[in-house]
Amino acid sequence: MQKPKVPDIVVGRLPLYLRALSQMKSEGKRVTSSQELGERLGISSAQIRKDLSQFGGFGKQGTGYNIAYLADQLKTILKVDRVWDVALIGVGDLGRAVANYGGFLHRGFRIVAVFDNDPAKIGSRIGSFIVEDATNLVTSIRSKAIKVAMIAVSQVDAQAVTDRLVEAGVLGILCYAPISIAVPSHVKVQYIDPVVHLQRMTYHLP
Amino acid sequence: MQKPKVPDIVVGRLPLYLRALSQMKSEGKRVTSSQELGERLGISSAQIRKDLSQFGGFGKQGTGYNIAYLADQLKTILKVDRVWDVALIGVGDLGRAVANYGGFLHRGFRIVAVFDNDPAKIGSRIGSFIVEDATNLVTSIRSKAIKVAMIAVSQVDAQAVTDRLVEAGVLGILCYAPISIAVPSHVKVQYIDPVVHLQRMTYHLP
Repeated sequence: MQKPKVPDIVVGRLPLYLRALSQMKSEGKRVTSSQELGERLGISSAQIRKDLSQFGGFGKQGTGYNIAYLADQLKTILKVDRVWDVALIGVGDLGRAVANYGGFLHRGFRIVAVFDNDPAKIGSRIGSFIVEDATNLVTSIRSKAIKVAMIAVSQVDAQAVTDRLVEAGVLGILCYAPISIAVPSHVKVQYIDPVVHLQRMTYHLP
Repeated sequence: MQKPKVPDIVVGRLPLYLRALSQMKSEGKRVTSSQELGERLGISSAQIRKDLSQFGGFGKQGTGYNIAYLADQLKTILKVDRVWDVALIGVGDLGRAVANYGGFLHRGFRIVAVFDNDPAKIGSRIGSFIVEDATNLVTSIRSKAIKVAMIAVSQVDAQAVTDRLVEAGVLGILCYAPISIAVPSHVKVQYIDPVVHLQRMTYHLP
């Protein structure tokens, strides 16, 4: 599939469309419309049509979208028509919750390695993982050819861990530490910081 | 402070600016520039100047920004010059990690009530909280006048919990369940779904 240069904000909505379509599919629905999708997501139907049109036409005028077909197309576009191996660094409370989260695999991701630098944690079992020594991070990630990582270490350690992930060949980092990390331009970073979201809401509150 | 109608995407960057400024402050810095801020955040200095100009001028031409002053102004704009009481619903692995997270208070939020519907969890202690029966959610949240909540329940329960939070007078909901929830227009919602972020990265990966 040819991929035009699409604004990142549009790319950011595709996973929401895919999530809603998968939900509809699990409800037994077969066809939907930009209106229905928009109502579920709180996004205007015009926005959805415009976003999807950037990747070609997925619906026929008047007949709506075939849910399974559109979901498959979005999976291909987002490259989750495959399963990505993921490394998780840091198994404090949050890292442990992430390691045990059952929602990754059916959406394209599988944690395959878990690291920490705490001697008390190294070698211990978390779910189906044995916690590896973070000292071996670069070697281990390289040998497994892992390209995606999640960082759940403290903000003090986040940049040093990032540097080693980049050295290991990781291309995408999801950072749970409340700090902006520096990476070379070929590496993509996304952040999860609940306080950023909370503050974005309180701005609007009376 | 007069508040102009600012695009939500701009509002969404303010917490990042505030976070970086607080970090700089803790490093002992007193003055910064849009260039320096931009480098830390991976955002262009022009974008930062444009965003901040929507709220009035915070820096004098050529002298940069006073970090403490700009941080205080952003706190006022984001309404985190106060501390918001927060309710947390759901104490599975993730909810437990959120309850134990130490990063809320100094950024404007304090969890004051924790709920679950699991009899095995109700009445148990998580950190400094006693888990309340979710049956009493509306009464308890109303009596405490809580306006902000975080949902860490399963996607099956998320909408029902949302409806009761709205009934209880909550105005802002941070949803960790991987589903879009429906709320009246006066209620703000933000989402945290790691897979959405991961897919947004894999789109760009080779």
